[in-house]
Amino acid sequence: THTLGKDSIVYAMAPDNVPALHVQDGDRVVVHTCDCFEDQIQSEEQDFGELDWERINPATGPIYVEGAEPGDLLVVNIENIRLAHRGVMTTGPNLGVLGDELAHNVIRMIPVQDGKVIFDDGVELPLRPMIGVIGTAPAKERVACGTPGPHGGNMDCKRIGVGAQLILPVNVPGALLALGDLHAVMGDGETAVCGVEIAAEVEISVQVLKGKAWPAPMVINSDAVMTIASALTLDEAANAAAKNMVHFLEHECGMDKAKATFLLSIAGDIRICQVVDPLKTARYELPRTIAEHYGFQF
Amino acid sequence: THTLGKDSIVYAMAPDNVPALHVQDGDRVVVHTCDCFEDQIQSEEQDFGELDWERINPATGPIYVEGAEPGDLLVVNIENIRLAHRGVMTTGPNLGVLGDELAHNVIRMIPVQDGKVIFDDGVELPLRPMIGVIGTAPAKERVACGTPGPHGGNMDCKRIGVGAQLILPVNVPGALLALGDLHAVMGDGETAVCGVEIAAEVEISVQVLKGKAWPAPMVINSDAVMTIASALTLDEAANAAAKNMVHFLEHECGMDKAKATFLLSIAGDIRICQVVDPLKTARYELPRTIAEHYGFQF
Ligand SMILES: [Ca+2]
Ligand SMILES: [Ca+2]
Ligand SMILES: [Ca+2]
Ligand SMILES: [Ca+2]
Ligand SMILES: [Ca+2]
Repeated sequence: THTLGKDSIVYAMAPDNVPALHVQDGDRVVVHTCDCFEDQIQSEEQDFGELDWERINPATGPIYVEGAEPGDLLVVNIENIRLAHRGVMTTGPNLGVLGDELAHNVIRMIPVQDGKVIFDDGVELPLRPMIGVIGTAPAKERVACGTPGPHGGNMDCKRIGVGAQLILPVNVPGALLALGDLHAVMGDGETAVCGVEIAAEVEISVQVLKGKAWPAPMVINSDAVMTIASALTLDEAANAAAKNMVHFLEHECGMDKAKATFLLSIAGDIRICQVVDPLKTARYELPRTIAEHYGFQF
Repeated sequence: THTLGKDSIVYAMAPDNVPALHVQDGDRVVVHTCDCFEDQIQSEEQDFGELDWERINPATGPIYVEGAEPGDLLVVNIENIRLAHRGVMTTGPNLGVLGDELAHNVIRMIPVQDGKVIFDDGVELPLRPMIGVIGTAPAKERVACGTPGPHGGNMDCKRIGVGAQLILPVNVPGALLALGDLHAVMGDGETAVCGVEIAAEVEISVQVLKGKAWPAPMVINSDAVMTIASALTLDEAANAAAKNMVHFLEHECGMDKAKATFLLSIAGDIRICQVVDPLKTARYELPRTIAEHYGFQF
């Protein structure tokens, strides 16, 4: 098992990022990640203006996977996530859904104890650790880690948690995988512009998948097969996620397009990942049993 | 228990609709509903062009509830839904998310047997009956039953099923409740532009709620408290649903706005109802236990 420290970080996914680690197809890596503020917030009394806003959404990496070539897919198996003992939430003017109604920036430190997030007033929520930012390098451009896209990035999808298999595109040799922005728990939408933002150690294994034209990014877990899409508007993202799943059923399972559309209309759900980032992200969730009924194997 | 037949239908929710039935606060009504095509489709060979497109999305009603005055809320308790033995699905060019990729109109008749929808190829889905169109009269305008809005209407929200309490605004004396467009099952998004469209008998009871400034429409069931909002774009609908829930927590539970926003960001979900109607519809789902923890009672 390899280890990659918090000092190896990038602020953009980019084809010219220098690899921080080389691994073989199938290898395991423990990736140490800062929270999305690069661990700069340590107190509720801290001044937003004092933060270094250049140091936002760091992703640990990039990891060069030997044998990954443009046109392949990269499977990231999320084996384990160990969280720090405290997370942070922030919101304020121009941030999140309520950004036009909030007068002040607010910081809350959130303890994590006994498998729970301690919100306030005795309200405790079970941990559902997830990776907010995870992606490969785009072919040509640099994409800031705060932005999602076809390469992955800041998708803020709560299904990217332990036990999930994330399918990402390989656009450059070695894929150049990077990840960060863990959340102890987050609701679909990410209303306030954050989950419980937290430092973590993420154990992954990587596999190169050749000869598949799947509409990445996708997430596969024991319950569901999912497509993910990001766009300027949620309308476009939702439509793209659903279309990607129809195309997946058409090409992977040989289904007629109208029939696949009918199936999606009753058997699964278009869901929201987040509505607060530079591009919005949606996913389509199809029960895995149904995909398997139509011949999907993985 | 009153009964209202399929012959008492409207194609728009409107303040000048003539009541088909008068009931007292607390009364039960069995409402017979046509499917969204007014039961015109009886075979997969039928020609779309032959359908009477003026007779679409009929809602049975309106029901005048004695004592309901503008400014009140109407609680519709969904007591029971009995479905017909066969439903129908349709999609085609310019319909649904795949409307720009489909070459022909397609009709599928869908048998309903033993508590299941028989899709095809041995794929069976459990019934999750829901009401697609349900609303009260707007104060001034006529709104076609195919369009959702603050008055309810074509929200296509799968949580509006048995056991749910739907909260609607009262805009005119008697509220003028009407409903139809049942689905045997539908996924969030309504990808193909339909669920399994089906005729039904819907048993409801109605209550007038006075002195509450809740952001209707809302749905309350044993699991969750939900706000629903519709808008031209899904982005606006999603934001409005989340804002309505923040305002509900602020005014009903006395929560600070930033704190309510934080809570929504981690404890519940913004979800999609449908992306295929003239306005899009989203909902925010907050676990009922959390609302109750902050003093909500119902
Ligand atoms: Ca994020
Ligand atoms: Ca984050
Ligand atoms: Ca409908
Ligand atoms: Ca319908
Ligand atoms: Ca609809």
